[in-house]
Amino acid sequence: MPYYIGDVIRDYKRLVVRTPEEFGKTGIEVRIKTRVDGIDPGKGAVYLSDGTSLPYDILVMGTGGLAIRPGIPGENLEGVFTLRNLTDSLRIKSYLNEKSCRRAIIVGGGYISMEMSEALRNLGIETRVIHRRSLPVRRWDPELSKMIVEELTKNGVSFHPETRATAIEKGENFRLRMTTTSGEMDADLILYGLGSVPNVDLAKSMGLQMGESGAIRVDSSQRTTLEGVYAVGDCCEVFHLVSKRWTYSPLGDVANKQGRIAGQNIAGHPAVFPGIVGAQCFKVFGLEVGITGLTDEEAKQAGFQPVSTIIWGNPVARSMSRGERLGIRLTAEKSSGKLLGAQAIGDKGAVQRINSLSVALWCGLDIDQIGYMDLAYAPPFGGAWDAIHIAAQNLRNKL
Amino acid sequence: MPYYIGDVIRDYKRLVVRTPEEFGKTGIEVRIKTRVDGIDPGKGAVYLSDGTSLPYDILVMGTGGLAIRPGIPGENLEGVFTLRNLTDSLRIKSYLNEKSCRRAIIVGGGYISMEMSEALRNLGIETRVIHRRSLPVRRWDPELSKMIVEELTKNGVSFHPETRATAIEKGENFRLRMTTTSGEMDADLILYGLGSVPNVDLAKSMGLQMGESGAIRVDSSQRTTLEGVYAVGDCCEVFHLVSKRWTYSPLGDVANKQGRIAGQNIAGHPAVFPGIVGAQCFKVFGLEVGITGLTDEEAKQAGFQPVSTIIWGNPVARSMSRGERLGIRLTAEKSSGKLLGAQAIGDKGAVQRINSLSVALWCGLDIDQIGYMDLAYAPPFGGAWDAIHIAAQNLRNKL
Repeated sequence: MPYYIGDVIRDYKRLVVRTPEEFGKTGIEVRIKTRVDGIDPGKGAVYLSDGTSLPYDILVMGTGGLAIRPGIPGENLEGVFTLRNLTDSLRIKSYLNEKSCRRAIIVGGGYISMEMSEALRNLGIETRVIHRRSLPVRRWDPELSKMIVEELTKNGVSFHPETRATAIEKGENFRLRMTTTSGEMDADLILYGLGSVPNVDLAKSMGLQMGESGAIRVDSSQRTTLEGVYAVGDCCEVFHLVSKRWTYSPLGDVANKQGRIAGQNIAGHPAVFPGIVGAQCFKVFGLEVGITGLTDEEAKQAGFQPVSTIIWGNPVARSMSRGERLGIRLTAEKSSGKLLGAQAIGDKGAVQRINSLSVALWCGLDIDQIGYMDLAYAPPFGGAWDAIHIAAQNLRNKL
Repeated sequence: MPYYIGDVIRDYKRLVVRTPEEFGKTGIEVRIKTRVDGIDPGKGAVYLSDGTSLPYDILVMGTGGLAIRPGIPGENLEGVFTLRNLTDSLRIKSYLNEKSCRRAIIVGGGYISMEMSEALRNLGIETRVIHRRSLPVRRWDPELSKMIVEELTKNGVSFHPETRATAIEKGENFRLRMTTTSGEMDADLILYGLGSVPNVDLAKSMGLQMGESGAIRVDSSQRTTLEGVYAVGDCCEVFHLVSKRWTYSPLGDVANKQGRIAGQNIAGHPAVFPGIVGAQCFKVFGLEVGITGLTDEEAKQAGFQPVSTIIWGNPVARSMSRGERLGIRLTAEKSSGKLLGAQAIGDKGAVQRINSLSVALWCGLDIDQIGYMDLAYAPPFGGAWDAIHIAAQNLRNKL
């Protein structure tokens, strides 16, 4: 798989960020449209596709991830997209600007798909999401994720569960026709939202060790298994503070933090990246959706005995409620009562609660502590007992 | 000062909550309109104003707080209100329903005053806030609280700084006339929002010890200095986890928690209330305002050497920003880097950040940890580096 140093920077030119020339003024040389064919860590040399090479003392691998494609016939046709990087998004934008798109199919029900369904719908495009499972966003409890299907439906996005794409061909009335396990569907645009895998061919070829997740193995200073070689972002692993395992969690905020840690270490200011608790969120139309820590299944795999509860509360005080919904699911370890994970969904206030609970996870709080944690109370933001407290006390009674 | 057992319950009848009769069915006897004249802890007797008495084994003091009045001539005139309890709010409501109110004056610039200025303005009433200081909400940094004045002004509330009320009399065109240090002002309604003091006359008369704050001294189980006597809510102190001191913090959420802890202990299920970090918030028109932990001054008084920073960030990712503002002020201890306090204000996302930072305070995190804390990132909710991270790293550089 080819990749380009400075791919993102080229694209950013169009979004008025730094050009290679501007970087040059800071003493940083940026080579765009420059493919790396190989790296010899013994010699400290990077071999470029134009036949030249660059020497290095320190190397940072930031090769990112690759969008997953199902590998079906016709997926290279014009109008079929992935959304992994800025280039992809600019391509999609150009296509939408240049062609008239009446109908779109999104393949996959992850949260990039959810976000894109809103974006496409806001452009007035008839939008379908096909998904191999019965409900979108795999890691959330069905009681929560079924609200997402309702939100999609309410906003004119049709959700097709238990459906797989099997082939794409050119269409007649619409530009493309997709064959699926639930029949044929027409569309002018098809978007894959099937997640990503680490882009590690080059890393493997130079002898870097991979972790169990398949991403580049690093330590807390972002060092790989080869001296002088660092890795950051979606190509490498990250330590999960709850499962105590190195995992693959390709997220922009994690990548930013790892980049800064690597930079500090390279510059001689030792720093360690503590890890993640797995805080994630997205918005789909009017709905906030968040998750942190481990799901029950993940908790079991990590050796815990999880106990969970779901409560439906109010994101504002009952006296001010206009019927806004807020669902919180908490998971704790049976013996210690320690929080293992949380999920939240609602019209309002779901993400803020996931953030508070992420800090609680980060610090290893148990359900008793969370049930009495001091949170800022005013009626527009919750009840005197916040939904977090109620959920924690509810779970406490189940332990 | 007279007070009534069951005062709140009587009022709640009008809001369709439990009546004394309904309580009776659960085996709980509720006496409304019943004043306590004295308590003899030696005999375990409560003396009522009707001449009868009630015996007790366990007594819970929940006498609450009393609204502060400036003690100026005319403050007992019809149309002059405090807002301390439900009775007060029902009185204000009746007055607003029965009389035509064109103009209101709120005396004091605390956050109940801010909330009430919005409520009155929403009823179309011309509203003034007079305040003895130059800016409202004393504990916030002026750089933050001046945004509140702008928000008031933008919404038609006039803010009169450095102004004290000196007298109230009956008016002519308007029902009341108030003399202030900045001249005379007419109004149909005057509301005192000057904070509250613990209602402890009865507690003192029965020999309970008060803490330094002047509220009833309790321990972490809500026990007072007399055996069998508990105290909860706005009449007693609470432990502040950051200052490590017992303080007076009359807030609804704290009172709820203390009530539950006392109840558990009384019922033979030992429980302790860990304390508070001082999380507070309010909304005024479109502005979210929050605070947690200690201000610089409070930190110094508690023996810390505080260092602070203010950053202005985005409550959403820059690519999605519509100019929403978010100001965060962090305070840390110079030697340890431990977080001591935080303030936030903004059009969006201020309270959620105060909550995350409250959990961080609760757990004793330092600025380095907060700078890399895992928070859920998606563009509608913040940047890949959240404003919290940016503020923490900014403060780190100042330590």
